[in-house]
Amino acid sequence: MAYADTRFATRRRALSAKLAGMRIDEMLITNPIHVRFFSGFTGSSGALVLAKDLTAEIATDGRYTTQIAEEVPDISSVIDRPSDEALLGRIEGPRRVGFEADYLPVSQLERLQQACQDDVTLVPVTGIIEEIREVKDNTERIRLAEVADLACRAFEGLLAAGELAIGRTERDVAADLEHRMRRFGAERTSFDTIVASGPNSAKPHHLAGDRIIRRGDLVVIDFGAHARGFNSDMTRTVIMGEADEFSREIYDIVLRSQLAGVEAATPGTKLVDVDAACRSVIEEAGYGEFFVHSTGHGVGLEVHEMPAASQTGKGTLRENMTLTIEPGIYVPGRGGVRIEDTLLITQGPARIITPTSKELRVV
Amino acid sequence: MAYADTRFATRRRALSAKLAGMRIDEMLITNPIHVRFFSGFTGSSGALVLAKDLTAEIATDGRYTTQIAEEVPDISSVIDRPSDEALLGRIEGPRRVGFEADYLPVSQLERLQQACQDDVTLVPVTGIIEEIREVKDNTERIRLAEVADLACRAFEGLLAAGELAIGRTERDVAADLEHRMRRFGAERTSFDTIVASGPNSAKPHHLAGDRIIRRGDLVVIDFGAHARGFNSDMTRTVIMGEADEFSREIYDIVLRSQLAGVEAATPGTKLVDVDAACRSVIEEAGYGEFFVHSTGHGVGLEVHEMPAASQTGKGTLRENMTLTIEPGIYVPGRGGVRIEDTLLITQGPARIITPTSKELRVV
Repeated sequence: MAYADTRFATRRRALSAKLAGMRIDEMLITNPIHVRFFSGFTGSSGALVLAKDLTAEIATDGRYTTQIAEEVPDISSVIDRPSDEALLGRIEGPRRVGFEADYLPVSQLERLQQACQDDVTLVPVTGIIEEIREVKDNTERIRLAEVADLACRAFEGLLAAGELAIGRTERDVAADLEHRMRRFGAERTSFDTIVASGPNSAKPHHLAGDRIIRRGDLVVIDFGAHARGFNSDMTRTVIMGEADEFSREIYDIVLRSQLAGVEAATPGTKLVDVDAACRSVIEEAGYGEFFVHSTGHGVGLEVHEMPAASQTGKGTLRENMTLTIEPGIYVPGRGGVRIEDTLLITQGPARIITPTSKELRVV
Repeated sequence: MAYADTRFATRRRALSAKLAGMRIDEMLITNPIHVRFFSGFTGSSGALVLAKDLTAEIATDGRYTTQIAEEVPDISSVIDRPSDEALLGRIEGPRRVGFEADYLPVSQLERLQQACQDDVTLVPVTGIIEEIREVKDNTERIRLAEVADLACRAFEGLLAAGELAIGRTERDVAADLEHRMRRFGAERTSFDTIVASGPNSAKPHHLAGDRIIRRGDLVVIDFGAHARGFNSDMTRTVIMGEADEFSREIYDIVLRSQLAGVEAATPGTKLVDVDAACRSVIEEAGYGEFFVHSTGHGVGLEVHEMPAASQTGKGTLRENMTLTIEPGIYVPGRGGVRIEDTLLITQGPARIITPTSKELRVV
């Protein structure tokens, strides 16, 4: 049954409050994930206009007439294309209309400038929707926990079924993991799955190729699911058959670093300090030069979003943000380890929504 | 071994010829699939500048230092970020520098305008790279045939293994098909797989949900693989258990329509006429109102690209273009059929690169 879901209206109120402070009368939203965020509409084509007085209109094309009525019962809809022009052309001035300058292509802006009335001024807006997205509401927290849980169960299933095994290719392991996530309800992966074995484990950007997994390999598995608009992100590193001293050493350092990062991730902590909590453990162990990336990022509608925990990260953690903690050591030619959880920042210790065991596993 | 692959230089020559005609001195390429198209670089972050005299420079960040040297031996590279500013800042004027206005966000243009020297003029460019992409070179034809073949084998495997079966959910069938494509070498799907059963088959935009497939269902399966930068796209419709008269009737009409479209798709034929060849068969059978979309599109670096075969499609087919032929009939509440191949346009009859049987299958 269609019913007015209050979370969308709440999000629109948050945006409206920001618009008022910027002397913007209406905001044209064209990024599809933002159209969905503020309205619930999941179609691939559409646009939304939100006024500072909270009136809103949404537009899509004729393919979605039934769907938009079901998904968006609380906003009046216009069936016309192109949707952005249809909405903008209906605005009578004088008005200052914001647009999403970080997403709108230059040629689309030129088209919109033709479509709007003379006394409508288009104003570039950046960052304010991303700020609203940083703090997750109750529905978002539930969805994020669900999709993270699905990914955890897929990984445990992969190990239990012996699908991560010596003699198999990286690609086949990735395919099996993705298949399990898909059957548990993922609509797709949230990014290309990484299964990086042996020397490939030392390459942070390796995906999953034809290499056959061998005894003694470190295998870094970094994977995520996408379902109902939300993403998951986690990494575990496993050792095949037997663990040599080097592998055990760097695994232990990365695990201690990761636990320190999780412990540091509390409301009020600066993002640079979360990064430092991880990085100092690795530096003190003498492997600082091999931790070649930042510590973490937010996860939500996008798999990488604000905030950013890095050596240059700005700002402070707040309650109900998400953050990955994913330190790694990558020694070229020898091997690498990365361990990553996604956290929900809460009063007190962070809630780990990817609670799969991080103890060293030799499989 | 790294070697200078001449196809990239050939593509750059084609772009250079177009730039000369537009009085553009250099073209800044920022769309990642175009950076790859003109250079071979597969990293996620980078930019390319091509001058009308065929000199070129490519930039990326420090993560890709080794990779860019291996993948792009024939263009000098700059390791700096942001890559676009790094390249643009090195251009000394007076120069007219084109940028990709259909992709570049407004805020990125503002940043670039700050980064370039006073006598450099940034000029919006649209459409010319897409025109070059419309006609596929030898490597592209091979890659497209390979990825299409992989998808065909996955579909045949699905049927042979009995994975499309009464009692299973749409999602599980989609998961199994995707798993087969992945194990055959796909890096991901080229779009979200459609498995639309029973009444869902009448919804052209249904994906794959929780519905359990039943005896007598029509099941529309529309799927594609992505590998080595290229996409595939095909659809087959299967009937479960037994076919009633309605299902047989609309299947037969759609198949005749599809065959008429394939026959019409020859060099020199107008795209509106290809659409009309399909549409007239369905209209004459009395189902015209239920063929609610266009006939087809090109397939290449993107799964939907130029040309477009529709009632308003512009232009004419040329040798070595690709085109899908995908008529359908969708009767709300009753069911639907779509049959889709991807064609390579050749002198004489088109080459079908998705040659899986289109005979009515009752499984």
